[in-house]
Amino acid sequence: MAAAEGPESLVVVHNVAKRHNVGTMARSATAFGVSEIVLVGRRDFNAFGSHGSTTHLRFRHFHSLSQARLYLKARPAPSAARNLGHPLLPEERDCDICGVEITDGAVSVTQHPFRKSTAFLLGNEGMGLSAKECEICDFFVYIPQYGGGTSSLNVTVAASIVLHHFGGFPERSREGNKFTLAEKPVKQTRRNYCAEPVESIIEDRKSRRENASRDFFDDNRTDSTESTNSLAELFSG
Amino acid sequence: MAAAEGPESLVVVHNVAKRHNVGTMARSATAFGVSEIVLVGRRDFNAFGSHGSTTHLRFRHFHSLSQARLYLKARPAPSAARNLGHPLLPEERDCDICGVEITDGAVSVTQHPFRKSTAFLLGNEGMGLSAKECEICDFFVYIPQYGGGTSSLNVTVAASIVLHHFGGFPERSREGNKFTLAEKPVKQTRRNYCAEPVESIIEDRKSRRENASRDFFDDNRTDSTESTNSLAELFSG
Repeated sequence: MAAAEGPESLVVVHNVAKRHNVGTMARSATAFGVSEIVLVGRRDFNAFGSHGSTTHLRFRHFHSLSQARLYLKARPAPSAARNLGHPLLPEERDCDICGVEITDGAVSVTQHPFRKSTAFLLGNEGMGLSAKECEICDFFVYIPQYGGGTSSLNVTVAASIVLHHFGGFPERSREGNKFTLAEKPVKQTRRNYCAEPVESIIEDRKSRRENASRDFFDDNRTDSTESTNSLAELFSG
Repeated sequence: MAAAEGPESLVVVHNVAKRHNVGTMARSATAFGVSEIVLVGRRDFNAFGSHGSTTHLRFRHFHSLSQARLYLKARPAPSAARNLGHPLLPEERDCDICGVEITDGAVSVTQHPFRKSTAFLLGNEGMGLSAKECEICDFFVYIPQYGGGTSSLNVTVAASIVLHHFGGFPERSREGNKFTLAEKPVKQTRRNYCAEPVESIIEDRKSRRENASRDFFDDNRTDSTESTNSLAELFSG
C-alpha cells in the first residue's frame, strides 16, 4: 500500500469482463503502491494471477459509476462537520479521475500529466471505455504504440504501465533478487469478493435509495445475480 | 514490426513455463515495435491473449542459450565474406542482450540504459533468470516497485514496461480510439509453433553438430518431446 502522505493512486474497474485480469492487475497495483481497487458493477473477481497480492490491497465496491465518482471526488469537509463526527462522511479522496483510453484529447502517459491523487478508470477488455465511463473522467491518458500488430494493449498491461509512470513513491527495499514482501495486512471475509465495513454499507444503502432511479438500473442490471448473496443484501433485510 | 532503420528490440523467451503468457507478450511486443521473438528451448507456444498479433511477429527458435547468443551478437561480416554471398552467414543482429531481472547491478529502466539494438531476456515466471540465463546477458534492467504486496511483477507486465521504455520508434497512426492495425504480413506453417526458413534450419543442424556436447544436452533435455515433430527433424532425416 502507498505511503500515507502524498498523492495516492487508485484503480477503478467497471464490470471487468475477464475476471482473471483482476488478479494480475492486483499484483501490479500493489507493486506500484496503489492504495485501493474500486470495483463498480460486478463485485466478485478472480484472484488468479495475483500471487496473494489481493490480501495486501483494499477493495471497495459501488453499484454505479456515479456513486464511485461521488466517493472519488469527495473533498475535505468543513471543520464544523468534522467536529460533529458525522458517521456517514465519506472518506476524502479528492481524486482526479483519469481514463486510460486512446481518445482524441488523451495525453501520452510519458508526459506525466498527474497533479494529485488519481483514480485510473480502465475499460472493459476489447471495448475500451464506454461513453458513460468517459463521462466521469476528468482527463485521459494513452500509451503510445509503434507497431501495427495490435490496435490496443491488454488492459492489465495498460494499467501497469500507467501506474508505473504515476510512481513518485519511495522505492521498496529488496531481499536478494526480489522486492521485500510485506506481512499480510488486510483480512477479507470471503476470498475474491469485495466486502465492505458496516458504515460504508449503511451509506451505500442510503445512497442507493436516494439515487434509486437511472444509475442503479442502468449500471446494475448485469450485477443482479452476483449481488444476491452480498453483505449489502444481508444488511438491508 | 519496427522500422527497418534504427535500433531494434527483440524479446528472448527461454522455456517459458506458462505458455499463455507468450500470447499477451506477443500483443505487447507488436504494439511496441519488437522485430522478433526468439524462443529458446520450448518451441511451441500458446497464442491465447495475442489477439491475432502473433501473425505480425517473426518468431525464431534456438535449442540452447549459447546458440541464441551467437545469433543475437553476430556482427556485420567483412565485405569479402559478404561478396562471396556465403549462404550460412547469420543475420547481423549485433544486439546488446539485456536481462530483465532485479539483480544487484541492474539499472532502473526509467534511466533508459539502452545504446543500440537490444534483445530482452525474460525469466521463467516465478524463478526469475537462472545463473545460465544471466551468463549470456550484457547488462540488466529492473522495474522499481513501491508497495509490499508482491515481490515481483508478472513476466508479461515486466516485459511490456521495458519495451515501452525502449521505444524511440515513430508513433503509430490511429483510427478513432484504436491504433491502426496493419495487414497480416507473416505466414506461419503451423499455428502457435515456431518454424524457420530452410537456411536457418541447415545452419541450426550444422551448429548443433558442432556444439553437440554440453549446451545441447543441458538446455535441450526438456524439449525432446516437443521437437520430435519439428521441421528441423524433418530436414535432418
